[in-house]
Amino acid sequence: MNSIAMKVKEFQSILEKKNSDFALFYNSDSSKANPNMLYFSGYKGIGALVVPKNKMPFLIAPAMEFERAKKSMIKKAYSMEKKRFFDSIYKIIRKNGLKAKNIAIDKNNFTLNSYRHFRKQFKKTNARDISFDCLKLRELKAEEEIQFLKKSCSYADKIMQKAIKNFKDFKAESEAAAFLEYEAKKLGLETSFNPIIASGSNGSMPHHEPLNAKMKKGFCVIDFGVKYKGYCSDITRTIYIGNPSKKEKEIYNFLLDMQKGAINQIKYNKKCSALYDFANQKLGKYKKYFTHGLGQGVGVEIHELPNLTLNSKDRIKDNMVFTIEPGIYFPKRFGIRIEDTVMFRDKTIILTKTEKDLIII
Amino acid sequence: MNSIAMKVKEFQSILEKKNSDFALFYNSDSSKANPNMLYFSGYKGIGALVVPKNKMPFLIAPAMEFERAKKSMIKKAYSMEKKRFFDSIYKIIRKNGLKAKNIAIDKNNFTLNSYRHFRKQFKKTNARDISFDCLKLRELKAEEEIQFLKKSCSYADKIMQKAIKNFKDFKAESEAAAFLEYEAKKLGLETSFNPIIASGSNGSMPHHEPLNAKMKKGFCVIDFGVKYKGYCSDITRTIYIGNPSKKEKEIYNFLLDMQKGAINQIKYNKKCSALYDFANQKLGKYKKYFTHGLGQGVGVEIHELPNLTLNSKDRIKDNMVFTIEPGIYFPKRFGIRIEDTVMFRDKTIILTKTEKDLIII
Repeated sequence: MNSIAMKVKEFQSILEKKNSDFALFYNSDSSKANPNMLYFSGYKGIGALVVPKNKMPFLIAPAMEFERAKKSMIKKAYSMEKKRFFDSIYKIIRKNGLKAKNIAIDKNNFTLNSYRHFRKQFKKTNARDISFDCLKLRELKAEEEIQFLKKSCSYADKIMQKAIKNFKDFKAESEAAAFLEYEAKKLGLETSFNPIIASGSNGSMPHHEPLNAKMKKGFCVIDFGVKYKGYCSDITRTIYIGNPSKKEKEIYNFLLDMQKGAINQIKYNKKCSALYDFANQKLGKYKKYFTHGLGQGVGVEIHELPNLTLNSKDRIKDNMVFTIEPGIYFPKRFGIRIEDTVMFRDKTIILTKTEKDLIII
Repeated sequence: MNSIAMKVKEFQSILEKKNSDFALFYNSDSSKANPNMLYFSGYKGIGALVVPKNKMPFLIAPAMEFERAKKSMIKKAYSMEKKRFFDSIYKIIRKNGLKAKNIAIDKNNFTLNSYRHFRKQFKKTNARDISFDCLKLRELKAEEEIQFLKKSCSYADKIMQKAIKNFKDFKAESEAAAFLEYEAKKLGLETSFNPIIASGSNGSMPHHEPLNAKMKKGFCVIDFGVKYKGYCSDITRTIYIGNPSKKEKEIYNFLLDMQKGAINQIKYNKKCSALYDFANQKLGKYKKYFTHGLGQGVGVEIHELPNLTLNSKDRIKDNMVFTIEPGIYFPKRFGIRIEDTVMFRDKTIILTKTEKDLIII
């Protein structure tokens, strides 16, 4: 059974309940995918996805993308005419005999200018926001998605381990990043984000971009993930280049203990804010150097629900997949982050399995 | 002289003319950059950029991104408090003593939900769209930008040529894509998009994603580019794996002649729609297999102004940098695309210099 197809049905019952004639998702930027279009259809290109409350969903794609759209999970696809984007979408929806009195749109992925163009066509339509329902639907993974995520994490593990094994050969951060990217691409996988390699003082910037300059001694943060069938994995390891001092080893092990402790705190129905709070409390005097959340859901996007942050309203439920990634960043000195992707179902299962004890090279 | 700094001044004079107290750009998604923030500041992370009409611009970044923001071209940066995004932005703007009666926002990069949050703070502000002015400003490149784009194209050339030289070693499309990515990353460069390697019948999909399966014989489309200092290059070559028939060689040369002819048509003040029309007419009976525009501007985004399409309102001006990329796509059979990045200043200069005669391997 195709469990993403079941998610489509679940989504349609939400539309039915909200009395929405259909949901409309669109993407007008070929350089990125609309996450909900990707989720429901597997299609990453330009165009629109229409999910009627009680009919088969269909895609609308420009001529140049039509063949690709037809290869997606949605078998019904229309080719867009060479006219304005929403004009073409409107005509195809009308041809399909769909009412457009109340519809659902994703206001997280709808720009003000697109909305202006949309309004020129859908003049009397009542357009309600469905973004939160989509995020909540995607928060609990179907069996098929969990299999994809497990596979994604297993690939990320293998490539991470290979990179660590070869690490002493990398003269620059950019070489290490290139290696990670190459190993992923060779297998036909995209990376889930641009790999982060942050050596020495660069490590104090959680989102540092790898430099084509001599790798610095000391801690080196390696943050990486791949997409398997569109599903993201995310893993960070911090290794040490050179000879760590006793103090440096202590601080690494302190963070590692906390990361493991946080994973042990995961329980059914636990508040995600409490998990963040646990991590933050444990850090004691280092608290102010922990400048981001404890983790977040992963799926077709690298940042999804739940949020493991101070103000999160989320609670741990079965079939959630998320990261646990505490870090400590000393401005202009160094940074350490240790991150796993985990899933929860009755119990916590760590999906990224690469060794966490400090590796010194 | 820093010519991007001059672009900031030019932008401020637009704000002055439009009586806008400041322009506000934001990015809430760490997986992508806001193109105008990137353009004016070089900063790619989460946060906001405020450009007052008559004061120094400043960045607002979350704590985890603060050190990175301070390394951007904008020296003035504030750390965001741990509260709601636009709440924090509002407070910092107020602290700066800026009026917020009339402001400018980029409605191409402003989502409906962000706008709702924005409105909770900026209750009485009149927020006008500045997106088109930004696109027009970015359409004409400053000297510094042209140098970056030339360098970007030169890197793309080198890597493309290296890939073609090694092409017979690639067993799968994904291997060729991995090679391109690796060579870019090794130099500390991002690719400007995920490289496209489309062999045999996959070539009929202009945006085909490289597969980890045996490379197909016949035409193989290689579409690739890098970012140098944030500036995108874009080049496509189509090579042939195996022995092309006379007919296949003919059709390749037919497209190549047309591509060269289109480049020769570029003149000062020429309508971009006329360039598209020239290409389309030249294709004759193949017209229906040409399913996209003739080209578009490149800069900090891979798709910018001008648009070389049927309905374009743009005209060729000095200091434009754009692609000329005709293609023919026979559904389920094969595709050919030949693309250069060119600049116009008094005359046309082709920035991507890789050989265009059919390479047979």
